[in-house]
Amino acid sequence: MAAAARARVAYLLRQLQRAACQCPTHSHTYSQAPGLSPSGKTTDYAFEMAVSNIRYGAAVTKEVGMDLKNMGAKNVCLMTDKNLSKLPPVQVAMDSLVKNGIPFTVYDNVRVEPTDSSFMEAIEFAQKGAFDAYVAVGGGSTMDTLPTTSGTGSETTGVAIFDYEHLKVKIGITSRAIKPTLGLIDPLHTLHMPARVVANSGFDVLCHALESYTTLPYHLRSPCPSNPITRPAYQGSNPISDIWAIHALRIVAKYLKRAVRNPDDLEARSHMHLASAFAGIGFGNAGVHLCHGMSYPISGLVKMYKAKDYNVDHPLVPHGLSVVLTSPAVFTFTAQMFPERHLEMAEILGADTRTARIQDAGLVLADTLRKFLFDLDVDDGLAAVGYSKADIPALVKGTLPQERVTKLAPCPQSEEDLAALFEASMKLY
Amino acid sequence: MAAAARARVAYLLRQLQRAACQCPTHSHTYSQAPGLSPSGKTTDYAFEMAVSNIRYGAAVTKEVGMDLKNMGAKNVCLMTDKNLSKLPPVQVAMDSLVKNGIPFTVYDNVRVEPTDSSFMEAIEFAQKGAFDAYVAVGGGSTMDTLPTTSGTGSETTGVAIFDYEHLKVKIGITSRAIKPTLGLIDPLHTLHMPARVVANSGFDVLCHALESYTTLPYHLRSPCPSNPITRPAYQGSNPISDIWAIHALRIVAKYLKRAVRNPDDLEARSHMHLASAFAGIGFGNAGVHLCHGMSYPISGLVKMYKAKDYNVDHPLVPHGLSVVLTSPAVFTFTAQMFPERHLEMAEILGADTRTARIQDAGLVLADTLRKFLFDLDVDDGLAAVGYSKADIPALVKGTLPQERVTKLAPCPQSEEDLAALFEASMKLY
Repeated sequence: MAAAARARVAYLLRQLQRAACQCPTHSHTYSQAPGLSPSGKTTDYAFEMAVSNIRYGAAVTKEVGMDLKNMGAKNVCLMTDKNLSKLPPVQVAMDSLVKNGIPFTVYDNVRVEPTDSSFMEAIEFAQKGAFDAYVAVGGGSTMDTLPTTSGTGSETTGVAIFDYEHLKVKIGITSRAIKPTLGLIDPLHTLHMPARVVANSGFDVLCHALESYTTLPYHLRSPCPSNPITRPAYQGSNPISDIWAIHALRIVAKYLKRAVRNPDDLEARSHMHLASAFAGIGFGNAGVHLCHGMSYPISGLVKMYKAKDYNVDHPLVPHGLSVVLTSPAVFTFTAQMFPERHLEMAEILGADTRTARIQDAGLVLADTLRKFLFDLDVDDGLAAVGYSKADIPALVKGTLPQERVTKLAPCPQSEEDLAALFEASMKLY
Repeated sequence: MAAAARARVAYLLRQLQRAACQCPTHSHTYSQAPGLSPSGKTTDYAFEMAVSNIRYGAAVTKEVGMDLKNMGAKNVCLMTDKNLSKLPPVQVAMDSLVKNGIPFTVYDNVRVEPTDSSFMEAIEFAQKGAFDAYVAVGGGSTMDTLPTTSGTGSETTGVAIFDYEHLKVKIGITSRAIKPTLGLIDPLHTLHMPARVVANSGFDVLCHALESYTTLPYHLRSPCPSNPITRPAYQGSNPISDIWAIHALRIVAKYLKRAVRNPDDLEARSHMHLASAFAGIGFGNAGVHLCHGMSYPISGLVKMYKAKDYNVDHPLVPHGLSVVLTSPAVFTFTAQMFPERHLEMAEILGADTRTARIQDAGLVLADTLRKFLFDLDVDDGLAAVGYSKADIPALVKGTLPQERVTKLAPCPQSEEDLAALFEASMKLY
């Protein structure tokens, strides 16, 4: 009987594979059996969802001392940066540690947009301190256990990004082992963000959602891992990451403009704070692709640009800005695959897509994004942050090592394609 | 400056509280600050999402041996029941353990709908074996590390349910500590389910979604925990559980009938298998209420009823059936709170709600559910599974200890209310 059942399963899998439409538009049913990718390599047949536990609530920061006590922590390192160390989020966390009798040391040398040498410095501090628990208060740069910006979603992911100074590019380390134990999401923290920080971190949420929803689906990703431990955290889009991506995108569409314009709009800023975590869960399990891959040299090769509202002593293209500036060009390019998903995203962002043609999906989404960015006073393209055509070869060169994400783009891209995407992003409006 | 910022926060929180509409229909914005519940008790202000890691894919069961090897397991207990032990899901799991050289012992004495004494027997076996890892292959009864039915979602939750024979009721243990490390969701397992098992486990998904979406919102639940460790796993509805509930409900509406009718419809059965996990994540963090609370005595007091397609030697009202039989009555009752959510659920299940009046929300949902159940050949109410009016006092008495869930109903219920709900559920059509 078991043999008969197995034969039936094998038969059904073959039927299913034959019946499934293989065209890009309709290949998202996710019911495909293990099989061969178009290129002949064996593709994956499973995906995994790994999420940090998260807790959300206004003023929830004051619980952190009790959590550490419950965990039995006896020697805590509180990591933050020099700006935040003067603001209430850090103060409330420290008060809670003191109140619960938790011994702790503050490390406030976290660099906004960290580098390999700032990582090394933090690692040395951590090794010397022999800490048994870490509390990170801050944006993506401090790894977001207590996020104070609404963007990276790092409180949910096993990803760490830094500038590798030698190569002048941002690169990432991805491992489920560096996922936080618990992410505390306290919307009161968002009241301390200046307008451009809200906007730029919101663009990171926007791109996490747009990119993870259009990554190569997990069952078209190859190679198929021979052991589940080697299945990457960035697995390609899947039915679970899709839910998070679409939900985060809806929140961005509804609340980002309000959150940027009114520092007192706690409702809008609260929703964006949750959206950051939602998009984080989505991209943390699906991955991102070209906007992120191309953003690393845009940030890494910065010349003189100093972003408004960021209190740092070095030139800086904030991560969210570096990501969003190429988005109109990127999605015009990627819409050759999964055009229906591109139209769906345009519609969520406010476009009237009722009469749109499927072959125009990329253009419709790009126009929608340009309007959205214009309304939010975003600099007019790469030229406005200091780049010219002469920089394109260096930008392309800085993108090539970002295979970790660029290979998740729905379609492969040549060096010429990348150059064209950078060129098309020089001016937006 | 910190003091000024804090004063502003306090001011904003007060403003927000004043501005928020407190009526049942509109109190779901979730942006409320910590405050007083209508009854004067202090309500909670935060919610937590805890989820098992899950992995989904056709034939993913064959990876389990590698996972255990990766974890360093050296003495594994494989738990299942006597029916399943003869079927491919267990065979494939065992093959994988053998192939990876993992020593294991099979315990196939799991009882379908476990009791306190069957729990004790399993505990004794486990203690004697001194195992370092457990693999459970089966439905909710074996705790679903490898679910073979599409219903309980136990692979994602920290909940265990059993019949407490002394009191003749089903009760539950809830603790994040009993959440599985990894849930493997293998859609091939669903091909071994007989039709009524698909239907009844699907009703469990249906009720997980309907109930968790209408539990008391987390910020109206009291008391407010004084330490986060005492915040219950069942916290009331929240913006994250809502996403899972609605998504699971959409899948049930689209695929359950197909999954029941055609054993070879791998697409429909795969979707239901994922929906079970989705609804599990939702209710595992929000809770359920009256359908589940009232189902425990319906199952526990069973007399002669033997459900079709279940190969057991004792009378049995399957869990999903015992849950769904009261659903039309329950949602007619609960729609006095959050009627818009009730209408939204009816619409997802196929009702045309465009001209429905908000005060008829409960009736509209109840009618929609009755039609759905009729189409799926569900027995005509509690009378059809062996109960009469004379049993109502015992059914009510069996519900009263289920406070763990009944207190999460959107409105409080008296013994008379419960009696009326049982009476209204005697006949459905």
